[in-house]
Amino acid sequence: MKPYDELSSADRAKEKETLQDLMKSYASRGLALNMARGKPGEDQLDLSMGLLETVNASQGFLAEGNIDTRNYGELTGLGEAKKLFAQYLGVPADDIIVGGSSSLNMMYDCLARAMLTGVLGSPRPWVQEEKVKFLCPVPGYDRHFSICQFLGIEMINVPMDAEGPDMDLVEELSAADPLIKGMWCVPKYSNPTGLSYSDRVIRRLGALRPAAKDFRIFCDNAYAMHLVYRDQDLLNPLDACKEGGNPHMLYLFGSTNKITFPGAGVAFMGASKENIAFTAKQLSMQAIGWDKINMLRHVRFLKDMAGIRAQMEKHAAILRPKFDAVLNTLETQLRGLGAGEWIKPEGGYFITFVAPPGCAKRIVALCKEAGVVLTDAGATHPYGIDPEDRYVRIAPSFPPLEELKGAMEVFCTAAKLAALEKLAV
Amino acid sequence: MKPYDELSSADRAKEKETLQDLMKSYASRGLALNMARGKPGEDQLDLSMGLLETVNASQGFLAEGNIDTRNYGELTGLGEAKKLFAQYLGVPADDIIVGGSSSLNMMYDCLARAMLTGVLGSPRPWVQEEKVKFLCPVPGYDRHFSICQFLGIEMINVPMDAEGPDMDLVEELSAADPLIKGMWCVPKYSNPTGLSYSDRVIRRLGALRPAAKDFRIFCDNAYAMHLVYRDQDLLNPLDACKEGGNPHMLYLFGSTNKITFPGAGVAFMGASKENIAFTAKQLSMQAIGWDKINMLRHVRFLKDMAGIRAQMEKHAAILRPKFDAVLNTLETQLRGLGAGEWIKPEGGYFITFVAPPGCAKRIVALCKEAGVVLTDAGATHPYGIDPEDRYVRIAPSFPPLEELKGAMEVFCTAAKLAALEKLAV
Repeated sequence: MKPYDELSSADRAKEKETLQDLMKSYASRGLALNMARGKPGEDQLDLSMGLLETVNASQGFLAEGNIDTRNYGELTGLGEAKKLFAQYLGVPADDIIVGGSSSLNMMYDCLARAMLTGVLGSPRPWVQEEKVKFLCPVPGYDRHFSICQFLGIEMINVPMDAEGPDMDLVEELSAADPLIKGMWCVPKYSNPTGLSYSDRVIRRLGALRPAAKDFRIFCDNAYAMHLVYRDQDLLNPLDACKEGGNPHMLYLFGSTNKITFPGAGVAFMGASKENIAFTAKQLSMQAIGWDKINMLRHVRFLKDMAGIRAQMEKHAAILRPKFDAVLNTLETQLRGLGAGEWIKPEGGYFITFVAPPGCAKRIVALCKEAGVVLTDAGATHPYGIDPEDRYVRIAPSFPPLEELKGAMEVFCTAAKLAALEKLAV
Repeated sequence: MKPYDELSSADRAKEKETLQDLMKSYASRGLALNMARGKPGEDQLDLSMGLLETVNASQGFLAEGNIDTRNYGELTGLGEAKKLFAQYLGVPADDIIVGGSSSLNMMYDCLARAMLTGVLGSPRPWVQEEKVKFLCPVPGYDRHFSICQFLGIEMINVPMDAEGPDMDLVEELSAADPLIKGMWCVPKYSNPTGLSYSDRVIRRLGALRPAAKDFRIFCDNAYAMHLVYRDQDLLNPLDACKEGGNPHMLYLFGSTNKITFPGAGVAFMGASKENIAFTAKQLSMQAIGWDKINMLRHVRFLKDMAGIRAQMEKHAAILRPKFDAVLNTLETQLRGLGAGEWIKPEGGYFITFVAPPGCAKRIVALCKEAGVVLTDAGATHPYGIDPEDRYVRIAPSFPPLEELKGAMEVFCTAAKLAALEKLAV
């Protein structure tokens, strides 16, 4: 078919009618399909069942140094967990805190503490500033934005391109405004685009000269080894900061939630020795420690970096046909119509669909009517406002393959219809 | 022997010399004994090994409602965990949030959020108040006080007696000062005295008329079923608040850390439906959920309230000889000397020694010289300042019985020597 905007209005009307009928037929089927959240599928979870057999009476519960993982202690984490996950984050073995199960909560907690007390070197708690602002690369992760909104932090959009955030803008804004205290970033297989930051971008991030001396980059390395098609080797953001003369400017977060079990994984943060010491001292006011049994389970199950790599290859083998299905359906159904573009990622958990302006909300609404749940349009942007109403995040991981294919048929029909409706206006 | 203050100075000098020689002989033995923290002993931890076998490939991982505990979701906790721990706290089944592994962290988090955003009904975030003050029953738990100190909350001492905090003072202070936003309490087997609040005190707590309309009692029910000698049946503090017309005034915290594994347990908070809804909404900004696999492990292992009671009887059977040893040594060595008093608790993790004024720090220092580590004197009070320098917290749970007996010999010698030194001044 020709691009929609080259069709005669009669042909457009006819196509629209066909699509409307299709949507009605989908709706009548009572579908209940979900492509909303980046949840691993059951077969992915099955990969980690061995984890549950690693610490018990027969396997033992003692960690290195004869530490009884069943009792209190070791606030910054078990030695062997720190060693493994420091390698995972690419930081020196002691420059890490291994905590509870949620890296999102760790990020929230760090930011909440910054508000309440400031970070290392802050002249005052951030709540005592006239205002606190954060740079937010868009499209981005809705839960990062919710944290800022909850804490009353003003968010400033920074557009992303194929190399990462617009660094001219990041440099300009951060240098000009001392109330800009930080920035979010997901450097690898970014949520939602799946694109990774180029080394050039990471180097420029590390060399920023923010007006705020206590500027902090909250770097969520959620997909550090989460390839789907191809593993990418990025410059380490903490190294880039050291090279750029900003050793304390960045916190690097990660977790095993999409390596083993979401919600029951292990979360960790890497940072400069000074940041880690400062944070550990603060954490000692908050808790006695976190679940060391679960840390030991993870180390025994994953073993080492080769073990993690092997595990991630297994995940990729399960995810690949799902990503293929989404991309192939988009290709087959939408290529050349002018009804939207999409970004093929090398890894991560999402495929981003970029609709014609003003169509994203409509696509999500149409899908919902037909029983296919997507993340709300707008969720990719601070305050839920996508200024051009273009971005839709597709999460292919959770539904079984056949359901996913069905959901994508609905999606493409919705995308076509929304584009045609827009053309008719 | 006669009371020290009735001895002739010659006899006192002689006794002092004997004690000094004894302390020297202890010191020369190179002891390394620890009665500092309320850690369960190894034999107590062994009671819960079955917990580690409850969720795995053969036992399954599905919770009620076919919820896959291995995946994201259920922010406020697994249904069956909420049901069991609501019974444990004595609240309706939905008036609870089951979270991560640390109730201390849950308390910190609640208080940090109160500072950042206020609680349900707050006119403004607490950080925007001129000052925030908390009432702190003393002696109390050092980690409660550290949280306040970390958050810049001014602490006001309220003396405890055998029935609980001095309620005349609590009523007077809370009614007079709108900057007093809350209060800590440990109603059962209180840390460190082991005494429980009387129903009369709990009823008066529930009927407070604080000047601050958003006053909150942080009620740490850490030892809800943790008998050593005798279980006590207390009025439920949340019920007392309802009856007193303050349904939203109290948060009730608990955990399984001293039922199963410290650090790898399950923590929870009970409160009014409105408080729980308010808190759950806030938590949804902080995390996707907590470790549901561990929740399921706990429900499968503990089963029900009868299961928890049986488990606590087993703990008590292990703790009782240790508490006996401490109390008997104190009785044998110190009774009638005027060298200090002690409180016999019915449960909990501590025995409080009340030294003659000005002696607590000296006792801890003397013990340390002889290789016996105690919690710092002063830790029982805000800012680490015990105004009369009297309270020493003894934690008998962790050392094996024989070590504990040795440590108590040292302790009693130190207590006698400190008292004599004081008399000589």
